[in-house]
Amino acid sequence: MNYFEESLKMHAKAQGKIETKSKVQLENQDDLSTAYSPGVAQPCKEIAQDPEKMYDYTIKQNTVAVISDGSAVLGLGNIGSKASMPVMEGKSILFKEFGGVNSFPIIVDTQDDEEFIQTVKNIAGGFGGINLEDIAAPRCFYIEERLKKELDIPVFHDDQHGTAIVTLAGLINGLKITGKNKEDIKVVINGLGAAGVAIVKLLNLYGVKDIIVCDSKGIISSQRQDLNEEKQNILKMTNKEDIHGSLKDAMVGRDVFVGVSVGNAIDKEDIKSMNPDPMIFAMANPIPEIMPQDAKQAGAKIIATGRSDYPNQLNNVLVFPGVFKGALANRVNDITDQMKINAATGLANHIENPNPDYIVPSPLDKTVADTIAKYIV
Amino acid sequence: MNYFEESLKMHAKAQGKIETKSKVQLENQDDLSTAYSPGVAQPCKEIAQDPEKMYDYTIKQNTVAVISDGSAVLGLGNIGSKASMPVMEGKSILFKEFGGVNSFPIIVDTQDDEEFIQTVKNIAGGFGGINLEDIAAPRCFYIEERLKKELDIPVFHDDQHGTAIVTLAGLINGLKITGKNKEDIKVVINGLGAAGVAIVKLLNLYGVKDIIVCDSKGIISSQRQDLNEEKQNILKMTNKEDIHGSLKDAMVGRDVFVGVSVGNAIDKEDIKSMNPDPMIFAMANPIPEIMPQDAKQAGAKIIATGRSDYPNQLNNVLVFPGVFKGALANRVNDITDQMKINAATGLANHIENPNPDYIVPSPLDKTVADTIAKYIV
Repeated sequence: MNYFEESLKMHAKAQGKIETKSKVQLENQDDLSTAYSPGVAQPCKEIAQDPEKMYDYTIKQNTVAVISDGSAVLGLGNIGSKASMPVMEGKSILFKEFGGVNSFPIIVDTQDDEEFIQTVKNIAGGFGGINLEDIAAPRCFYIEERLKKELDIPVFHDDQHGTAIVTLAGLINGLKITGKNKEDIKVVINGLGAAGVAIVKLLNLYGVKDIIVCDSKGIISSQRQDLNEEKQNILKMTNKEDIHGSLKDAMVGRDVFVGVSVGNAIDKEDIKSMNPDPMIFAMANPIPEIMPQDAKQAGAKIIATGRSDYPNQLNNVLVFPGVFKGALANRVNDITDQMKINAATGLANHIENPNPDYIVPSPLDKTVADTIAKYIV
Repeated sequence: MNYFEESLKMHAKAQGKIETKSKVQLENQDDLSTAYSPGVAQPCKEIAQDPEKMYDYTIKQNTVAVISDGSAVLGLGNIGSKASMPVMEGKSILFKEFGGVNSFPIIVDTQDDEEFIQTVKNIAGGFGGINLEDIAAPRCFYIEERLKKELDIPVFHDDQHGTAIVTLAGLINGLKITGKNKEDIKVVINGLGAAGVAIVKLLNLYGVKDIIVCDSKGIISSQRQDLNEEKQNILKMTNKEDIHGSLKDAMVGRDVFVGVSVGNAIDKEDIKSMNPDPMIFAMANPIPEIMPQDAKQAGAKIIATGRSDYPNQLNNVLVFPGVFKGALANRVNDITDQMKINAATGLANHIENPNPDYIVPSPLDKTVADTIAKYIV
């Protein structure tokens, strides 16, 4: 199946992937007078007295905005907010179908940080949560931090934390299978976009002690003169031995490779240079950092990708519907680091008997959202 | 039925009056890969090349935002954006149920004109049209004017134009019934909020030549020293004889009274002072400017109100679903004055044989939107 051609046809036929629907009947005069004027004045008055009552009388209780500026869409880069709309619609329907959470896509036509933040703050009142999507690093870190601080509803940049949570879940089951300990393993992460940064932080918080990180210029070390603030922060929590060099150098003697970078970034020799029973999470899309068959031939014990046509698909859809399902049900106003670790652990435990070809549930498993939601509390 | 109590119960039970739903199936891996990654990259790329393709591949083609700042909600005044949400949800479901147009409510938490305008502009890209709602006069005029000028999608402040169109439709049928001509009738309009101003303008454009307007301080005339810019503009198109005085003075010898003001603004004596066969459009809610039975006793030929429990309900729901249904179907990027007059004429003609108790269709008539839509072209 050519997904690109099929997708275009499907989008033309669907005339928009999402629709809005009334939950109440509007057939007679009483219906109109209750759902709308004059009766609707009553819930309005109640909310005017106590804004918290929005959670009783409006969609705020069960609706999430999916918001993007289109600055880092899929692997396509900064294609602008309008071109990001099909992704945002897709995300919104996944929220509903997998998490039972109503969701609406909002594209914001500015890439000025302050104006973006102000716009999101101005329209946040009607929503119970904000899922930020496809915003370029490093802006995404600042924008999320500000919105988390300044809004009283949960804000979650899925490209960061969704990916980090599903990666950690895979790692937890990988450790069970290989019998290794989080304190002892040596991890190399390639790629320092939104996902890479969040993965470093979450693995660090989880208790992984030895992480080396590479960007396109090699290992993040003290010798690098070109590190922005975010990368300097990353250096503080990684590379304890201050190793310098290339990704190839970084691979030697590692137990886990996490790729959130580009296709074909590593080869068989790299995997052979790793510790016994290495885990390879090659998440670049559509071409992974190494093809699963090559990784296997080179001795990888566990291989996961972002692709649907291989085992162990590390797909954010396992995470974000449940995160907001839980956040809304439990009226959580901030998604904390501890919740992320709990959600990852819960996601790992969703599989009773993990094996090398089954470290995370299928993205089609619609029971996963309930599992995650329990931990967002 | 106590609509206020019932409405509160209904809102609590509904848990939000609107939901979002996927229009595409998400059951298997092919579905996911077509609606979302990797296939969704294709429509994104097409839109990046040509933003107009949003109309082919996204909800922009059939979705309207209902946007408010909560500064003039129903008759409740400036109760703030949060408290306006039940009205905005109500409006959105009416769009879908009566016009087949998807609609989503957006509340904007600022009453600064420029910030409001900028926020709406920033999020407009994902929508095919903007329905402004419950924004106080005179700000609403400036905001609508700016947005109409600066956005390439239709912008429509329903409190102004929806009310004006349904009023004109009622007047057109009233003229048929009474055998009077638009050029000869004398009209008095009481109330110069959003609706009043729009009604003056539309009746003037339609060809009504003799209009006198009152606000809470009496007739708008050259003697008034307290007129803001909007009211000075209104004076230019009304009160040719420059009559001074009160609403009571203004009623004498008039053929038509249009009230968009407050309950009990006029009495039987006022109606008796009008020309023979007067029309009374007493649209204040929930208490009209005069109760229909009193108006009838005093000699009114035609009586219309905003209420559902009397004949001739002048309800905007007869207008806005069809306006945007037509605007989206016909890819109209501005709702012009001529379209408004055509829509009003079409709405009047929707009734084959008007009579004093039937000058506009029932708000429950779901065929009206198609009638209106034909004229938004």
